[in-house]
Amino acid sequence: MDISGLLTSAGINTGLCLVFFSLYSVLRKQPSNEGVYFGQRLAQLQLKRRGHLSFDRFVPSPSWIVKAWEASEEEILACGGLDALVFLRMVVCSCRIFSIAAIICSFPVLPLNYFGKEMRHRYIASESLDVFTIGNVKEGSKWLWAHCLALYIISCSACVLLYFEYKNITRMRLAHIIGSSLNPSQFTILVRGIPWSPENSYSDSVRKFCTNYYATSYLSHQMVYWSGTVRKIMNDAAKMYEMIKETSTEQNFGSRLIRCGLCGGTTHSVKGLTSEPESVQRQSDITESDLREKECGAALVFFRSRYAALGASQGLQSSNPMLWVTDLAPEPHDVYWKNLSIPYRQLWIRRIATLLASIGLMILFVIPVGFVQSLLHLEEIQKKFPFLRGVLKNKIIVRVVTGYLPSVVLMLFLYAVPSIMMLFSTIEGPISRSGRKKSACFKILYFLIWNVFFVNVLSGTAIERLVVVSSPKDVAAQLATAVPKQATFFMTYVLTSGWASLSSEIMQPYMLLCNFFYKFILRNKDDPCTLSFPYHTEIPRVLLFGFLGFTYSLLAPLILPFLLVYFFLANLVYRNQIINVYVTRYQTGGKYWPAMHNTTIFSLVLTQIIAMGVFGLKKSPVASAFTVPLIICTLLFNEYCRQRFYPIFKDTPAQVLIDLDRNDEQCGRMEEIYKQLQSVYCQFASTSNDVSNIVPLNDCQFASTSNGVCNTVPLNDCDDGDDGSLPRSRISEGNKPTQINVEDSFQVGDRRIELEVDQPHSIETT
Amino acid sequence: MDISGLLTSAGINTGLCLVFFSLYSVLRKQPSNEGVYFGQRLAQLQLKRRGHLSFDRFVPSPSWIVKAWEASEEEILACGGLDALVFLRMVVCSCRIFSIAAIICSFPVLPLNYFGKEMRHRYIASESLDVFTIGNVKEGSKWLWAHCLALYIISCSACVLLYFEYKNITRMRLAHIIGSSLNPSQFTILVRGIPWSPENSYSDSVRKFCTNYYATSYLSHQMVYWSGTVRKIMNDAAKMYEMIKETSTEQNFGSRLIRCGLCGGTTHSVKGLTSEPESVQRQSDITESDLREKECGAALVFFRSRYAALGASQGLQSSNPMLWVTDLAPEPHDVYWKNLSIPYRQLWIRRIATLLASIGLMILFVIPVGFVQSLLHLEEIQKKFPFLRGVLKNKIIVRVVTGYLPSVVLMLFLYAVPSIMMLFSTIEGPISRSGRKKSACFKILYFLIWNVFFVNVLSGTAIERLVVVSSPKDVAAQLATAVPKQATFFMTYVLTSGWASLSSEIMQPYMLLCNFFYKFILRNKDDPCTLSFPYHTEIPRVLLFGFLGFTYSLLAPLILPFLLVYFFLANLVYRNQIINVYVTRYQTGGKYWPAMHNTTIFSLVLTQIIAMGVFGLKKSPVASAFTVPLIICTLLFNEYCRQRFYPIFKDTPAQVLIDLDRNDEQCGRMEEIYKQLQSVYCQFASTSNDVSNIVPLNDCQFASTSNGVCNTVPLNDCDDGDDGSLPRSRISEGNKPTQINVEDSFQVGDRRIELEVDQPHSIETT
Repeated sequence: MDISGLLTSAGINTGLCLVFFSLYSVLRKQPSNEGVYFGQRLAQLQLKRRGHLSFDRFVPSPSWIVKAWEASEEEILACGGLDALVFLRMVVCSCRIFSIAAIICSFPVLPLNYFGKEMRHRYIASESLDVFTIGNVKEGSKWLWAHCLALYIISCSACVLLYFEYKNITRMRLAHIIGSSLNPSQFTILVRGIPWSPENSYSDSVRKFCTNYYATSYLSHQMVYWSGTVRKIMNDAAKMYEMIKETSTEQNFGSRLIRCGLCGGTTHSVKGLTSEPESVQRQSDITESDLREKECGAALVFFRSRYAALGASQGLQSSNPMLWVTDLAPEPHDVYWKNLSIPYRQLWIRRIATLLASIGLMILFVIPVGFVQSLLHLEEIQKKFPFLRGVLKNKIIVRVVTGYLPSVVLMLFLYAVPSIMMLFSTIEGPISRSGRKKSACFKILYFLIWNVFFVNVLSGTAIERLVVVSSPKDVAAQLATAVPKQATFFMTYVLTSGWASLSSEIMQPYMLLCNFFYKFILRNKDDPCTLSFPYHTEIPRVLLFGFLGFTYSLLAPLILPFLLVYFFLANLVYRNQIINVYVTRYQTGGKYWPAMHNTTIFSLVLTQIIAMGVFGLKKSPVASAFTVPLIICTLLFNEYCRQRFYPIFKDTPAQVLIDLDRNDEQCGRMEEIYKQLQSVYCQFASTSNDVSNIVPLNDCQFASTSNGVCNTVPLNDCDDGDDGSLPRSRISEGNKPTQINVEDSFQVGDRRIELEVDQPHSIETT
Repeated sequence: MDISGLLTSAGINTGLCLVFFSLYSVLRKQPSNEGVYFGQRLAQLQLKRRGHLSFDRFVPSPSWIVKAWEASEEEILACGGLDALVFLRMVVCSCRIFSIAAIICSFPVLPLNYFGKEMRHRYIASESLDVFTIGNVKEGSKWLWAHCLALYIISCSACVLLYFEYKNITRMRLAHIIGSSLNPSQFTILVRGIPWSPENSYSDSVRKFCTNYYATSYLSHQMVYWSGTVRKIMNDAAKMYEMIKETSTEQNFGSRLIRCGLCGGTTHSVKGLTSEPESVQRQSDITESDLREKECGAALVFFRSRYAALGASQGLQSSNPMLWVTDLAPEPHDVYWKNLSIPYRQLWIRRIATLLASIGLMILFVIPVGFVQSLLHLEEIQKKFPFLRGVLKNKIIVRVVTGYLPSVVLMLFLYAVPSIMMLFSTIEGPISRSGRKKSACFKILYFLIWNVFFVNVLSGTAIERLVVVSSPKDVAAQLATAVPKQATFFMTYVLTSGWASLSSEIMQPYMLLCNFFYKFILRNKDDPCTLSFPYHTEIPRVLLFGFLGFTYSLLAPLILPFLLVYFFLANLVYRNQIINVYVTRYQTGGKYWPAMHNTTIFSLVLTQIIAMGVFGLKKSPVASAFTVPLIICTLLFNEYCRQRFYPIFKDTPAQVLIDLDRNDEQCGRMEEIYKQLQSVYCQFASTSNDVSNIVPLNDCQFASTSNGVCNTVPLNDCDDGDDGSLPRSRISEGNKPTQINVEDSFQVGDRRIELEVDQPHSIETT
């Protein structure tokens, strides 16, 4: 490819981007698309609904860009939480690093490459791209020192920026921990592996254990139930309620509201139906014992202080490490209830199985790629499947098969990857939604780096073996031969895949179609669904482009302008999306940053190794040797950061929690928190005011909890593979709990079942 | 080598063993050698000293074998602690596994190998050893199924035995934790990375931190001082004492006893010298401020309960992970004081440096091996160093150079390895002696397996490259080619190195020489020194032989009888040594077992991989494929054990500690324990009744603490690189503390300096 070809490609892609962005600026003004483009604003009721038809609605405008650009860190933090801010800092940090790299590479490196060999240069537009790569520098050239120096400058500036960014984000994470001071998860631990005993129910075991060992700090606990079976129990309860209504209508017992009943502490004594007819008493007994049978060996235990919960969540509890396994509980909306009922002893084998499955998928993904490449060779297909010969004579079909089908097939396979990885992460058994997303994020990151970079580099060159494990000293040389050859491919990859992904991200074509289908075909007036930020697909993508940027910055500096444009646009687009589109349901509290840091260090070290190999191949052994201390320093820097910052992302400092406890005690807020704790974790929620419909929406029910009562918000949650609930009003927002009206609830043994008329979009302003 | 050669070699080695064992049985009866052969008994005063000369003293007798054989588990536990028992269980477990392997291999495998090819067998004595290896089975033979079956049986029985052994040792470890219920280390944490502040001393910082965050559970603390500088302070204190004695002899202040003074809690208020003359007051002020200056950023903090200490030792304390780093403290005699003063922020870099140095040593050890091998080729030496030509014409010198020098040089290099590894482990910065030994043990284990097995196997065959990293599927095949060829070498290795090491172990030639020199040349009547068990050299040796046993059991079953003899003798010898010779100063509480388990699993998997390769080479692909599930099952079994048992060896279960706390509270023992805690950790001890000699023995002073007072036992500790103190009376033995006579001690600020006439071998019976 020559310069003019590259510029043409860049022009086409720029044009497409402009068209899509203009289209977006029009589409976002249409009231019918509010659900697609303003999910976050809708959730916060910050949107002025525009009903009137005006000319203004159909004129493209760059106002969204201005708004996105002007959004402050505080706004981002308020809308998207710390994770969103961390994600944007990834993009900004990449921007900065590659700006420096672009400056360094445009002055000494690029001219040196261009004039590296004595040759007659053609007119610049028809110059081959290879002339601008390091391949054009002649062997043994003294100018390779400039490349070595540039590598040093890029590495050092990247490390310095990373250090300050890590420090900054650690500070923000601590502020986040302190800021979410009324976070119920800080008082709660998840106990798994509760031993089964024939005499006691699980709940009794937990109570016994906690009162025995944590008598002073134990508050109460809440069992986890088998998700599948609870549906049946809920049905039973509903039937029973019907029966009660029939048998004792005069006692004013029937109520329009039945509370979820499976949430709330279980330390209350058994109250309830003593004044009821005997049959009802028997029924309730049955349900009570049924419920006990459906308990699984996991429970949420609430403590009186954060430090007590932290102490109980760390280390080993029992002399059998498979029993009484404790962890700090996730936030209420973050709990992945389905996985809590997985027996703890299964987890290690699930982890191994999903690890193997992910590695298998990574390796076997070569098969669809091979299939796609075979589609490009029609002759072979005709040989293998002679009956197709007739069909393949049609020119249009041939064009479709060779022109579109391969990329469509590949795209379909690639689109399936995040869902498959999410499935693997679900099977793995994380206890929180954010944990599952984080796990999927890592899997997709490894997948992309392997399949986009390594498979392309290794299969595109002479090596052509998939698993190349040769002696270590050859690795650098082999990479040095293979990587520069693919420079043109990755340049166009950034142009097409990178820029296009941003257009697609801002247009949300899938959601737009859904919305259209939902509103104009099904004639439904509600907005179809809300999305949470797909960190598991976007973080790997941004990190992949960073990875490509590092590896090619020195070898083929022409990639840098395109990357810079990508990161700049990404900054704008994701800012806009975070402020307007995505709803934050749960967050990891910035735990994605170490992944960014480690990936960048990996990219840096790989770049240095490749550079070492290239210097070696270009017969500049001194420059090659000079990169070795750089590699060592980079690794040491990484180790230092791991020691200095990483523990904060793994554990919560005891000091901070003790201070928070003390503050709350001094303010007299503790009793209030204890009250809220009893009801804030809600495994099941009813969805309708019709008593016969007390059936959870699906296996992963969701409920939002405000004011101590489980309200149900029937949001059609179409987050990819994600089914969390919407934290419209968090306990941390300091809502005062109102007393539950006991007459509105229904006692089953020591549990209340309570129903409430659900109000679609009963959204509170924050 | 043929059978007769092997039998001759075995005969010679058996004879040598018999001679050494008889010699030992005579030498041990000599009263002058009691210090060498009965260190443990001497320490416990369980030895009847025999002074009379009798004929019986010079007759070899097998009585020691009987005694060693009859020693019960309880005796071993009492003499050598849990670590010794775990070590013996390693030997016994290896015995059992290889007995099963010997039975399996002697019936189907050995005859199949022997009659594997159609050939004319010679007279059995002159038959080559290769006839008995798997190499003699012809390609594609159906009998390879028998080998595959044998592999299954050996693997399964090894796994079953390992499982029950792991379970058993976990139980013993728990019993050990419960049994050492008055262990002061359970109440103590080590705080490192105390931040420096210009206003406060480190001690004040610790007090502030603990009273702020652990007000209810904090008892007191004890600072760690720079070891080098404290010697100076001790001298100053001694001088001051002299001065006091001069100025105020009438006040009865001078005493023969000066307490160590740097130990004991620092929460007492400053008392002391107010009635003294002003000069003394000034002096004491100077010393006090001096002492504060010599504090380093580490302290031992004592808590009121075990659970509080556990809670404070886990997780992250401060929002800066490099500050306020907490760990459970080692036992008093186990503390490696010198390393406590290492700044915490240095540790990670020390760890990396020692890791790299160890790997370097492992790889570079090939150089002395190469040098030794070059000695075998005199012609080349003569070519390189022509001036040696004259010398090398002398036949005797040639014999020495070619015959003895190589093995002597190699032995010297090999002898240096444990010391070097111990040095590396010291530099690494472990806080306990046992931790240091454990770290050295791992290093030596990896060193031996790499340098004895892999380097021999790889350099001895056609591969002849040191770093062989080829594609994974070839590894099995390459090992399968290389390993069987070295069978004869390893058979003789077991015979010579294995059996000889046992003879050397029981004879203790080095100690015997030292003793002789000390008693008959220096005319010193005391016993020279006591030894603690060298786990860091013996465990790797036993595991190496186990490793060889597994890898060759199937390939060359003739190795098994020699190995069985080795393990049987090892059982006897080590039992005898533990009961009689080695003194237990500190222990890890069975933490060596996971190393044994992991090494055995590694050996098993490597055996299976080699077998897979061999089956492949012998063109039995089905048998080869059938070993794959075996490998997977073995790895899964290992992972299960890691989940089920390993956490107990890493952490102490909270449940156990809470129970212990409760017991002690109910018995009213807590106050007593608190009193003992104040004085049980003693960084420095004085060694003489001469006041001017209050100089620590060396940088790593030792002190034994009984009855709450720091007694000094001047044992000449010549444990290899090891300088721990002798736990003659442990706090766990429930000695009642006697009140310290305040008039016998000397106050410096809020610290007492106390001197005591040391009584050589003032050993108390336990």
